[in-house]
Amino acid sequence: MAEKQTFPFERIALIGAGLIGGSWALALRSVNPKVHVQLYDQQAQHRVEAIEKGIANRAFERLEEAISGVDLVILATPVGAFSSVLSQLRPLLGPHTVITDVGSTKRGVIDAARSILGDVFSRFVPGHPISGAEKSGPLAARADLFKDKRVVLTPSAETNPEALAKVKLLWELAGADVHFLDAAQHDEVFAAVSHLPHLLSYALVEELAARPDAHVIFSYAAGGFRDFTRIAASNPTMWRDISLGNAQALLKELDAYTDKLSELRAALSKADGEALLSLFQRAQKARTEWASGLN
Amino acid sequence: MAEKQTFPFERIALIGAGLIGGSWALALRSVNPKVHVQLYDQQAQHRVEAIEKGIANRAFERLEEAISGVDLVILATPVGAFSSVLSQLRPLLGPHTVITDVGSTKRGVIDAARSILGDVFSRFVPGHPISGAEKSGPLAARADLFKDKRVVLTPSAETNPEALAKVKLLWELAGADVHFLDAAQHDEVFAAVSHLPHLLSYALVEELAARPDAHVIFSYAAGGFRDFTRIAASNPTMWRDISLGNAQALLKELDAYTDKLSELRAALSKADGEALLSLFQRAQKARTEWASGLN
Repeated sequence: MAEKQTFPFERIALIGAGLIGGSWALALRSVNPKVHVQLYDQQAQHRVEAIEKGIANRAFERLEEAISGVDLVILATPVGAFSSVLSQLRPLLGPHTVITDVGSTKRGVIDAARSILGDVFSRFVPGHPISGAEKSGPLAARADLFKDKRVVLTPSAETNPEALAKVKLLWELAGADVHFLDAAQHDEVFAAVSHLPHLLSYALVEELAARPDAHVIFSYAAGGFRDFTRIAASNPTMWRDISLGNAQALLKELDAYTDKLSELRAALSKADGEALLSLFQRAQKARTEWASGLN
Repeated sequence: MAEKQTFPFERIALIGAGLIGGSWALALRSVNPKVHVQLYDQQAQHRVEAIEKGIANRAFERLEEAISGVDLVILATPVGAFSSVLSQLRPLLGPHTVITDVGSTKRGVIDAARSILGDVFSRFVPGHPISGAEKSGPLAARADLFKDKRVVLTPSAETNPEALAKVKLLWELAGADVHFLDAAQHDEVFAAVSHLPHLLSYALVEELAARPDAHVIFSYAAGGFRDFTRIAASNPTMWRDISLGNAQALLKELDAYTDKLSELRAALSKADGEALLSLFQRAQKARTEWASGLN
């Protein structure tokens, strides 16, 4: 546990009291009770719950109040709102205020931040904590959500090294294991292991739910269906924004996956048991090896 | 709990000591320690483990020894082996011996049983317990695997009512909740909620595992990926047999799903946020309602 004097910020503006922003703030306040968190959230009920839950010291309806006097701004709304928030923020920032985000896509966010923040862009540290749950909102926040979980930072050549070091430390104080990736590589990797699975899971549930006999079909769904579709209970607005924000990489993944389904379909329609077995065996081996490597 | 005198069979041949057959036998032996279970399994290690685990009283290398004197035969191999086993069984069956199975597909199994068993087909009770795990083999068996879980029986017009009642009771003694479905409807329902998700999960893992940078991609996979791909750790032989055994219904499901992916792709490539949000919202609502209805 780092000592309190190493805590890199005194006053933090949290923009959006969702699961991720709320959990980071809870973790930071438990490590350093002196840090002052000022929340801005458009939803009145989120502001109420965030105060009840201990996520923030104060909660404001107006962005300028939440920004006042802070040395760090955390963008934790769905990524679709980032451009609007950054535009409103820009004239309100102090001369040394650092900005970071927790968005699941990085190239689009960085492009928007560069264009909106101008000479302040060097103090923007793009981040993505690899932890979540299908639950959302302030009441789902947990101080230990990031403990031993990966956080990916995707700084660019312009990123101020001091700002980067401070944000890195802030994640480490929340228990996270910080990694660095190039933003484009980040977006490709997460299109494959996170964004595509969410789309596939949403698609299955929506397709079945639209049928006239959906209630009969769902009544026989069991453990395999439950696990496969758990992520289809995720926040739709957040996933619309992620899908749009990473559309290029996601379309590429979707096409590769559709090709694989065509291959499977061909094997199935030819009753090619060897091809099916071989594909299933490769998948089982890879999945088992992956799972055995988890902490 | 039913009394021991109601136990419908005295001597049971278990063909295949996998998770499902092994768990049913464990449950029955715990309810009625007097029932005698004779296992046939081709794999010597499975025979050893089944005896160690208490699944069977005896374990045989030859089918005729396991069948000797039994009043019930449980087919619990992968469904691809059913025809061969039924052909070997046919001349060995006693005049009142009942046969049942635990296969995940039903139309193909019933057609094969009708053609192979001839006049004995009336004593064949087709069944499918809706419970499983990605683990397999005798050591994964658990006496409580079917407690409060659904078992679907798909009798035909020819099925002997007494045989059916006995097999139903045997499942109830293991704690299961028995339902009846027409075999064709069974296959359609399970193609949708079980067989298709398995194919989709295998396909994703195999597609990613084949890439040169698979280790980097997998290193960033987290909870969503873990849940979505849990069923890709399932037994490949079993799922090859299920896929082939239910190919007709599965191809129909795969095509409907591929159409849904095309719709999603179109929305994504047009950056149609409204269409994406609406699809994700319908899925989230259906998934949340389904989950809230689970016991």
